[in-house]
Amino acid sequence: MEKKFMNRALELARAGMKKNQGGPFGCVIVKNGSIIAEGNNRVTSDHDPTAHAEIIAIRNACRILNSFQLNDCEIYTSCEPCPMCLGAIYWARPKRVYYAANREDAAKAGFDDDFIYKELDLSPEERRIPMIQTERKKAIDLFKEWDLKEDKTQY
Amino acid sequence: MEKKFMNRALELARAGMKKNQGGPFGCVIVKNGSIIAEGNNRVTSDHDPTAHAEIIAIRNACRILNSFQLNDCEIYTSCEPCPMCLGAIYWARPKRVYYAANREDAAKAGFDDDFIYKELDLSPEERRIPMIQTERKKAIDLFKEWDLKEDKTQY
Repeated sequence: MEKKFMNRALELARAGMKKNQGGPFGCVIVKNGSIIAEGNNRVTSDHDPTAHAEIIAIRNACRILNSFQLNDCEIYTSCEPCPMCLGAIYWARPKRVYYAANREDAAKAGFDDDFIYKELDLSPEERRIPMIQTERKKAIDLFKEWDLKEDKTQY
Repeated sequence: MEKKFMNRALELARAGMKKNQGGPFGCVIVKNGSIIAEGNNRVTSDHDPTAHAEIIAIRNACRILNSFQLNDCEIYTSCEPCPMCLGAIYWARPKRVYYAANREDAAKAGFDDDFIYKELDLSPEERRIPMIQTERKKAIDLFKEWDLKEDKTQY
């Protein structure tokens, strides 16, 4: 762990906030001791609810590495990732994550992360946003086609 | 709920799979009875681990609506959203979600969603990808700046 990388993530967070791009969140991705990609929250300026610092940094890093995996990378993020970003991190598979604020700190600052973590633990029909299953059989048939597909790229 | 919208999500899933863009996942976003945006998984072709059907459809819909919120929208997705996509859905705040396959069906087809749901419930230090807190105080100071900022856009 190197403090300079977290300080850079915090600097990005502050700069994006001051430019009114979004909330005070920043992220850098490090490989072999160097920053390869950065991001800061741009939800409100980009009109994009997925434009969290981590998502932007992961997408930038993957573009640079020409890969959908962040092998041997470390993520430094100014706040514990929300469920969306944590999910993205698992799909990207870096080797380690450093974070500064935690989800309770984020909740106190008015961000919904903790609420979303709690919603995820409910069954789909119990959630605040109703989630209803339909046409399951057709989707299972599709997964069977995927299973039998010989030229697929696993991820 | 209209079956034609789920059938369209399944059609997008199948078409993307056949074109080797990614896994067999599709999504449409409906407002006032019409599809306003679509997406299919493009993880492997775009080298982007965040390019799930729902994320792409949400970003497209927000671009069209010029908003970071999907007010009064319904999401039809061919599979129960993974934690990343479910997080994105909570941030986008549609009114309802329909899904076809569930996470167990996805796991049988080789997709990690169920594993990621389980990881999210662990404390950061117990997770398979190590997550380490550092520099918390600086991040809390940043949240205080956000709190005091008078011209911020809440989201």
